[in-house]
Amino acid sequence: MKTLQVALGARSYPIYIGPGAMGLPELAEHIAGTEVLLVTNTTVGPLYADQLCAALSGYRLERVTLPDGEAYKTLDALMPIFDAALTARFGRRLTVVALGGGVIGDMAGFAAASYQRGVPFIQIPTTLLSQVDSSVGGKTGVNHPLGKNMIGAFYQPKAVFADTAVLATLPPRELSAGLAEVIKYGLLGDRLFLAWIETHLAALMALDADLMADAIAQCCAMKAAIVADDEREAGGRALLNLGHTFGHAIEAHQGYGSWLHGEAVAVGLIMAAHCSAELGLLSLDDVSRVTRLCALAGLPTQPPKGMRPGDFLTHMAVDKKNQDGRLRLILMRQLGDAYIEDAVNERALMATLEGSCCV
Amino acid sequence: MKTLQVALGARSYPIYIGPGAMGLPELAEHIAGTEVLLVTNTTVGPLYADQLCAALSGYRLERVTLPDGEAYKTLDALMPIFDAALTARFGRRLTVVALGGGVIGDMAGFAAASYQRGVPFIQIPTTLLSQVDSSVGGKTGVNHPLGKNMIGAFYQPKAVFADTAVLATLPPRELSAGLAEVIKYGLLGDRLFLAWIETHLAALMALDADLMADAIAQCCAMKAAIVADDEREAGGRALLNLGHTFGHAIEAHQGYGSWLHGEAVAVGLIMAAHCSAELGLLSLDDVSRVTRLCALAGLPTQPPKGMRPGDFLTHMAVDKKNQDGRLRLILMRQLGDAYIEDAVNERALMATLEGSCCV
Repeated sequence: MKTLQVALGARSYPIYIGPGAMGLPELAEHIAGTEVLLVTNTTVGPLYADQLCAALSGYRLERVTLPDGEAYKTLDALMPIFDAALTARFGRRLTVVALGGGVIGDMAGFAAASYQRGVPFIQIPTTLLSQVDSSVGGKTGVNHPLGKNMIGAFYQPKAVFADTAVLATLPPRELSAGLAEVIKYGLLGDRLFLAWIETHLAALMALDADLMADAIAQCCAMKAAIVADDEREAGGRALLNLGHTFGHAIEAHQGYGSWLHGEAVAVGLIMAAHCSAELGLLSLDDVSRVTRLCALAGLPTQPPKGMRPGDFLTHMAVDKKNQDGRLRLILMRQLGDAYIEDAVNERALMATLEGSCCV
Repeated sequence: MKTLQVALGARSYPIYIGPGAMGLPELAEHIAGTEVLLVTNTTVGPLYADQLCAALSGYRLERVTLPDGEAYKTLDALMPIFDAALTARFGRRLTVVALGGGVIGDMAGFAAASYQRGVPFIQIPTTLLSQVDSSVGGKTGVNHPLGKNMIGAFYQPKAVFADTAVLATLPPRELSAGLAEVIKYGLLGDRLFLAWIETHLAALMALDADLMADAIAQCCAMKAAIVADDEREAGGRALLNLGHTFGHAIEAHQGYGSWLHGEAVAVGLIMAAHCSAELGLLSLDDVSRVTRLCALAGLPTQPPKGMRPGDFLTHMAVDKKNQDGRLRLILMRQLGDAYIEDAVNERALMATLEGSCCV
């Protein structure tokens, strides 16, 4: 078992990573009161909720099972969580436990942030994507029809338990989507980690327990360092959005839930590499290397058929990474070295969009 | 014009108090970007929104007018705020301006706390109750059918403009409801202020501008001192709930919006005095003095007809001021000196309920 500390002053917390993490006795240490509300979904609940509930048998425990999928990540869909907590008369010492992927973590986290103006919460992420990405950062929230994650809070968990054993039941497509975020960390800040991923990709896809824990720990450590510097996303944290501005445009165009987030990010990473090459920062070999790695990880490498440059521009204009109407992109000076480009060169952007879209 | 600074470290902010406060040039100083979303309601909007919009003519400005009343303080009812902000493509530098009473301040504040995980917000409270009470404390949120203010956030405004000129259009019943909170501050921590209120009550009810600004400033200063000590309501802040546990029970029993919050608090103050007398802390003369002051301020002095002791107990059990199931009350050692009673004497409580209910 690996343990990593996310250093955020009074809001610091540990991440436990490895097979069987959700069965650790440390779980109880992070529950302050006697009341627990378990929030899960219809996919993960039947697989793992009973086992978790057994471990929590000493508490006054209620369970909420939400429908599975990004389409249900709405303000309305939070109500069953509040209903259950209030029906059980849970007070301000309630601990909310999120068992599921990124959607469940975001929703349960925002519900915990808002219930009686904030109660403690614990994350048990069950997808690779949520283990590497949602475990750190404190971003919680729901979607609005006009934009993703537009309603939410910055709210830190008391602890995260990234149980790699549960990845055995993850559909291969979701495993690939998680690997897209792993690749992102290599590309944004660690050239050696990028090479390590290339070397071990087959073993990671075969769920080698040690290598998987290493990969998750490395991503969480990188994200923790960035977030510790910039908890409220005033500056450097934007680097984490490498591939996400293009990716969000794809998700918005397709309708949330059609492409997986990680799939859209993979294409976004390739497009960011492409755009960096247009600016003369990366070589075409670099772009090919990113494309090849995504393809080997089972990820798409081109925007959805029929999506045009204009579709990207429409959706990128509303993306929240813009300040005062200017388009901001995260690009790469070289592979493993991302930066914030606040004045995107329009020619390079259009060349990227036209070169990427397969219409 | 009076100015008061609420000292909360990086989240400190000023309160401007006096006639014409909403027209101050300081308003613009507290708006960082170019985007403003004005949130008001169908009662206050027609009276004051045009004048405010004229003062904000230099900004990209949108206006949302919500229905008036506690019955509309729901999670659902926040959506028009998010819809307007996203339709206008407002970004993270948006400033939300709340023009209205406590309900508008709570809703707009929670919307600001949640929009893109937090944008700046400014309060322009237009009722006496919101000027003395909601201006300080950072409590925002909405109601749930099973409990008041159960969904929300602690979120501080950038500035508050308490314009006493707008009190001229406040219905007398709402002016009285505001005076209940003013009386609460005298009772909870300042015997001299209590005597000052008794002396000047008639002038306050006649809206004497100087005395009203003095009263508001005194209440805000007292609340600011308490909140600065205990921003997240871990301890001493509970003193501010003097009269509120009984009062919330009355509101819940009647259905939110039937009694005004301040009316319920007035009866709650009298009941807290009664209970303190049952414990031998206050004299019967003290109880009469509280009752008389509330009556002179045009406030009710008894629970609604037909509300029984059992109704109080039912609603008080779900009140969030309880910890681990124990009933907590704020009582008085003497008039002007409130304290937190964590182990309420059941006999004294029952005697209070039976002596107060007029069935």
